[in-house]
Amino acid sequence: MRLSQYFVPTLKETPAEAQIASHRLMLRAGLIRQTSAGIYAWLPLGLRVLRKIENIVREEQNAAGAIEVLMPTLQPADLWRQSGRYEAYGKEMLRITDRHDREMLYGPTNEEMITDLFRREIRTYRDLPRNLYHIQWKFRDEIRPRFGVMRGREFLMKDAYSFDLDFEGAKRSYRKMFLAYLRTFARMGLKAIPMRADSGAIGGDLSHEFVILADTGESAAFCHPDWMQADPLGERITSDEELSSFFGKYTALYAATDEKHVPGKAGIPEEQVVRARGIEVGHIFYFGAKYSEPLGAKVKGPDGAETTLEMGSYGIGVSRLVGAIIEAGHDGNGIVWPEPVAPFKVGLLNLKANDAHATGVVEDIYGKLQNAGVEVLLDDRDERPGAKFADMDLIGLPWQLVGGRGLEKGLVEVKCRKTGAREEISIESALRKLAG
Amino acid sequence: MRLSQYFVPTLKETPAEAQIASHRLMLRAGLIRQTSAGIYAWLPLGLRVLRKIENIVREEQNAAGAIEVLMPTLQPADLWRQSGRYEAYGKEMLRITDRHDREMLYGPTNEEMITDLFRREIRTYRDLPRNLYHIQWKFRDEIRPRFGVMRGREFLMKDAYSFDLDFEGAKRSYRKMFLAYLRTFARMGLKAIPMRADSGAIGGDLSHEFVILADTGESAAFCHPDWMQADPLGERITSDEELSSFFGKYTALYAATDEKHVPGKAGIPEEQVVRARGIEVGHIFYFGAKYSEPLGAKVKGPDGAETTLEMGSYGIGVSRLVGAIIEAGHDGNGIVWPEPVAPFKVGLLNLKANDAHATGVVEDIYGKLQNAGVEVLLDDRDERPGAKFADMDLIGLPWQLVGGRGLEKGLVEVKCRKTGAREEISIESALRKLAG
Repeated sequence: MRLSQYFVPTLKETPAEAQIASHRLMLRAGLIRQTSAGIYAWLPLGLRVLRKIENIVREEQNAAGAIEVLMPTLQPADLWRQSGRYEAYGKEMLRITDRHDREMLYGPTNEEMITDLFRREIRTYRDLPRNLYHIQWKFRDEIRPRFGVMRGREFLMKDAYSFDLDFEGAKRSYRKMFLAYLRTFARMGLKAIPMRADSGAIGGDLSHEFVILADTGESAAFCHPDWMQADPLGERITSDEELSSFFGKYTALYAATDEKHVPGKAGIPEEQVVRARGIEVGHIFYFGAKYSEPLGAKVKGPDGAETTLEMGSYGIGVSRLVGAIIEAGHDGNGIVWPEPVAPFKVGLLNLKANDAHATGVVEDIYGKLQNAGVEVLLDDRDERPGAKFADMDLIGLPWQLVGGRGLEKGLVEVKCRKTGAREEISIESALRKLAG
Repeated sequence: MRLSQYFVPTLKETPAEAQIASHRLMLRAGLIRQTSAGIYAWLPLGLRVLRKIENIVREEQNAAGAIEVLMPTLQPADLWRQSGRYEAYGKEMLRITDRHDREMLYGPTNEEMITDLFRREIRTYRDLPRNLYHIQWKFRDEIRPRFGVMRGREFLMKDAYSFDLDFEGAKRSYRKMFLAYLRTFARMGLKAIPMRADSGAIGGDLSHEFVILADTGESAAFCHPDWMQADPLGERITSDEELSSFFGKYTALYAATDEKHVPGKAGIPEEQVVRARGIEVGHIFYFGAKYSEPLGAKVKGPDGAETTLEMGSYGIGVSRLVGAIIEAGHDGNGIVWPEPVAPFKVGLLNLKANDAHATGVVEDIYGKLQNAGVEVLLDDRDERPGAKFADMDLIGLPWQLVGGRGLEKGLVEVKCRKTGAREEISIESALRKLAG
């Protein structure tokens, strides 16, 4: 993509309304613009990141055997009356009345609707287990929306719902999601740690919040130092036994949010406990018959008896993750994207946009990178080098390829955004390095 | 995907509420379920079709130089007051009041919002032209929603908006979309014909509805017989001159909806005019300064003077297309998907699910097709052959691969859903044919 023909309105000034790093940087790098309080339009660069995150989430949900559907944003109020949550939900639920005075709402979550869809179609235990998920916009009418997409009102969420015949099945479904979540966040270059969360009386230990570590995180987190070396992508799990032992191993390692942390409980000397800041980006939750019971979602079991379904739900804040990833990866000059979610892999700077020869060489590099399938953003604007460097650092693509004076000798500068390391190498070496 | 582990609730009975073929078939084939009047949940098969259509639309928008963004579903009422449409829009606009009594609405379209985003960032003609599009859910509170996704209330639409300095530029932007639309629909296996539409006083001839031909279409359409041979995918257009002559050639061919048709105007003997039924699936529209003027969207021109932007908008009904494609392609047994939008390319039927040898052979075929990157749905359910045949015809995948008695001799039956042609061939030939 050519920056001269794109839509990336970067800002030099820090917007006054933005209190945290990710909000500031998303506005400054031209990823989003606010259109109402807590509601954002995603500009091209921001949308590319959002889609990359969404795709990683999708791939890992599919790999775990979950099935994608898509429920609408608006829901009938009656469904929520059946579960008893319509009145209970409070003012965060955006209530809507249509032209025929029917009561509706903008879905903040989908337990009722998915349970309704499932109960209408599934009659027998032979159609179990199932895990259905969707990735859809939701709305929570926060009283004070802030922190940009980290606590917006209209937000994109992946929510999955598992249906099982019994608790054993529900436990297996839960563990599959536990693994999928660890893999999902690891693939985004994040250190995500599941922390035991409240699940009320029914859940036992089957409720975890996934917290990613970021110096500027919203809350304190405490964990066993082994978490720092944990590599969920290195685990090969092909059977229920392996899944069970994986779950056992990872839940045995201490991890707690501020509210839950009890000094001395980590099983290691307190001074070895890692203290960090964290951001919640996912939550998995077993809730048994909480919705299937009031909504009457049952199947015939192997013994012919009607059995109420056992359920769990599994959420990931997809739009929130864009902010969370920036909180976990930025410096004084701007964003530092992990490569798997970066809007482009390479930023190619033409510092001599007015020089025909130099421009020809840069265009040739641009074409070669594109032909090799490398996502590259070419800064071909008629701007001073200083402005180009500043914008490229702000946007935070993993690699910068700078074509300047060295072009005459067939040399370009390659800079790693994360480490700041630069080297001047031949164009051929640079292409091998970035397209390899 | 294995049908035994999927979620495809097919229906034997025709639902009473469905009046047209596509609505009936989408319910019967388990593509959608209604969740409120005119609002649908997309089940796995339906969602796969929706995504394929969306991706073809996206690819052709990108190829035409349009830039993807994503605007939110909810909009502030104030923006619509600036354009004068807030009161004018009537009851089809879903008006919403949030917890702070702010007036909002569920966007039925996005002219105001995109103009606002653009005016905030773009200051000079050097940043023109631009065409920004998004693919987002919209809402129109139809008084009598019906015909399934063909006239639903919550619907998925691609809407693009072009910004140019002058009329010449706007015309070029319009022609690019005209070409992109013809390519988009042709890639979906549809015969789409642009019909001149009203554009008020300003537009001149720059307003076209794209109508696809379907025997069960909602309205009558009349066109020159040359449209039947037109092949927009065969056109190679690399310059403004070629684009202009393409536009001239295609707009010279007569085409008119029922309302616009004037016998004798086609330029050929009236009996040669093709009379068909059609369904509107897209609309492109030049509207000049209709929104940029009241919203004050201006840039500095080359002469330094402030110039009001020239705009156009370009819509495709993405969710509507799912229904329209079924209207254009079905028979008495079910849906007949064009391959580019089919949920899977191949349906593989194991008629001997209780026979270990046969099942082993079918599983091997399944694995080989998947490894070759072929999207295949395996009917591995414990059902009678008749039920499997009926469901597979109903679902309408382009190719059926039937493993039955012939498996012992290494033979399978390949059936083309569209023509009904069958042949019994060796497994190797079948794999070559379908994975080639």
